Amino acid sequence: MNHRQPKRIWNFSAGPATMPTEVLDQLAEDLIDVDSTGIGILEHSHRQPTFDRVLGDAVESCRALGEIPKEYEILFVPGGATVQFSLIALNLIPDNATADYPDTEVWSAKAIVEARDAVPSATIAVPFEGKRYRYDHVPVEGEMTPTPGATYLHYCSNNTVHGTRFHTPPKAAPGVPLVCDASSEIFGRPMDWNKHALVYASAQKNFGVAGMSLVIAHRDLIRKPVRRLPSMFSYAVHLAAESRINTPPTFAIHAAGLMFRWMIAQGGVREIERRNDAKAALIYKEIDGSGGFYRGLSRMECRSPINVSFRLNTEELDQMFTKEATEAEFDGLAGHRDAGGIRASMYNAMSISASQALAQFMHDFAQRHG
Amino acid sequence: MNHRQPKRIWNFSAGPATMPTEVLDQLAEDLIDVDSTGIGILEHSHRQPTFDRVLGDAVESCRALGEIPKEYEILFVPGGATVQFSLIALNLIPDNATADYPDTEVWSAKAIVEARDAVPSATIAVPFEGKRYRYDHVPVEGEMTPTPGATYLHYCSNNTVHGTRFHTPPKAAPGVPLVCDASSEIFGRPMDWNKHALVYASAQKNFGVAGMSLVIAHRDLIRKPVRRLPSMFSYAVHLAAESRINTPPTFAIHAAGLMFRWMIAQGGVREIERRNDAKAALIYKEIDGSGGFYRGLSRMECRSPINVSFRLNTEELDQMFTKEATEAEFDGLAGHRDAGGIRASMYNAMSISASQALAQFMHDFAQRHG
Repeated sequence: MNHRQPKRIWNFSAGPATMPTEVLDQLAEDLIDVDSTGIGILEHSHRQPTFDRVLGDAVESCRALGEIPKEYEILFVPGGATVQFSLIALNLIPDNATADYPDTEVWSAKAIVEARDAVPSATIAVPFEGKRYRYDHVPVEGEMTPTPGATYLHYCSNNTVHGTRFHTPPKAAPGVPLVCDASSEIFGRPMDWNKHALVYASAQKNFGVAGMSLVIAHRDLIRKPVRRLPSMFSYAVHLAAESRINTPPTFAIHAAGLMFRWMIAQGGVREIERRNDAKAALIYKEIDGSGGFYRGLSRMECRSPINVSFRLNTEELDQMFTKEATEAEFDGLAGHRDAGGIRASMYNAMSISASQALAQFMHDFAQRHG
Repeated sequence: MNHRQPKRIWNFSAGPATMPTEVLDQLAEDLIDVDSTGIGILEHSHRQPTFDRVLGDAVESCRALGEIPKEYEILFVPGGATVQFSLIALNLIPDNATADYPDTEVWSAKAIVEARDAVPSATIAVPFEGKRYRYDHVPVEGEMTPTPGATYLHYCSNNTVHGTRFHTPPKAAPGVPLVCDASSEIFGRPMDWNKHALVYASAQKNFGVAGMSLVIAHRDLIRKPVRRLPSMFSYAVHLAAESRINTPPTFAIHAAGLMFRWMIAQGGVREIERRNDAKAALIYKEIDGSGGFYRGLSRMECRSPINVSFRLNTEELDQMFTKEATEAEFDGLAGHRDAGGIRASMYNAMSISASQALAQFMHDFAQRHG
């Protein structure tokens, strides 16, 4: 093992994202020997007591952190959210039925494409087309006409590219359950479980290791898929096997458990939300106080506290900003290719100090170049 | 980081399996800071130069290690081999076509079930039913009647439960390509690429981190799936996106690259094969020289050098063996639930010292209890 003190820089990447050093140090130790078993976490059988402990802890701490009601099941499924785009449609939408998918940006748009390819006979209705507005907002009250009798309404609660967020869940047609892609903000605020039948998130933004997703679903919804499916595509089989149909992503499950416990130790979802709001406020304050030098990409009323997207007056200034930011050891600030400009992603593990440092840098940059 | 010297024990687990401490130490270091970027491997964007380097190294070292011809593409796909059981059928078997699946044990049997669920209109023919023989051998010359015109013949080259192996690839009908599940022995011997259209393996036995598979396929075979598929199920889309349709399992890809380079540094596939044969010979010698105290589960002519399965004269003795082995710090020796008895799994990263230690233990145990 290397004993140098590595130097860490500010990482504002949209994901995979920064992790707490306490968790990384624990993971590094556990790679060599976990629970004093003489065997590292990567090397343990997924059918033996050590991994039983790891998986049990991950599920239990997830439930505690997310305040997840007992009627909801917790699954760890290989692959990122794009796999879930297909599995949700395959498991839930009967042939020839309709599901609602408001389009609020690239990820919701991809979910639409994947659902159509997964269940070609279904109608994937798009009751809100955010593209018309360059995705600068999510639908406000009355702006969306949901489909009566839809199987569900799928939405992405926080949109990472343009930095918009549903501050309250969208209104589906009466009796239609919500399915939520919460990849970018899970455990960043309390979830209204009464309104949601299924909530999912990929791991690499808020709870660790890329290549795995968390699926939290009401038991009645996933007890039986609406069609014949191979086992790895079936939530019912994942549920019956307790996320161990085959060898699961054991390391990612372990890291998730450590991240859940880290968030609980920080004070839980409400404290994480308070910090996320404080981090975002520092950046938005620089934008709003810059006299137009920085301009946000999203409407004020649906600004995301997680991804703050903005641009400067010219593309040259955008590039100068990221160049100087890189020199000042801020990483990952270039905007998504769909939107350009600058984006500061501040997921649950990002410290307030990082946001303070970035706000100061923005302030100084505006003074130098404004 | 913890600076104690952890004590490591002999881990004969069937997988996830033991890894070289050099690789684990490097991974532990890279969790905190990889390539002196100030950012750990889990936290790096999959669209930035550091991960470009990691992925490029993994693909290049895989190709060098496996001596993979340039017509074959190398894909990293989320999920274990059970996901591939479905994807292979979905991508390759047209509706109403037939594919051959000799059944040599639990994993090939599961592949049959998954292929049937993935493509219900297809015929999944079983030209060899190993169950009749308690899976004590793989088909010998003339024992299998392959289907003329089948889309492919799928086989599992090394069977981990009963410890059997195809020493040479099975004979499909003329012109029918082979698809091989090499999860338990990939890079453990040279592969005859001329006979194989697609070879796949989950990572956790021979190249690292559970939750990802390697798929090596002839370009012509996977250029276009035989049916409309969601992107994450389509080899063609994985290929076009160079294994980055979405955020891939970045840590598992990094670990795979380190494992490939470790195997190259050991002397490559032929040296690994020599060591695997030597490790197995030590254990089979104890079995064959025990005068019936230990009895192998597989026929001599198709014994696996990777998984050595045997039993003692009574279940009580089996249990006493694993109990005393555990006390002597050997782990993972209990047989698979389908076969019972004892199983020593010795994948590519297992040292000859471990096998020597186990052989000595077996010798002493037989003397004490024989």
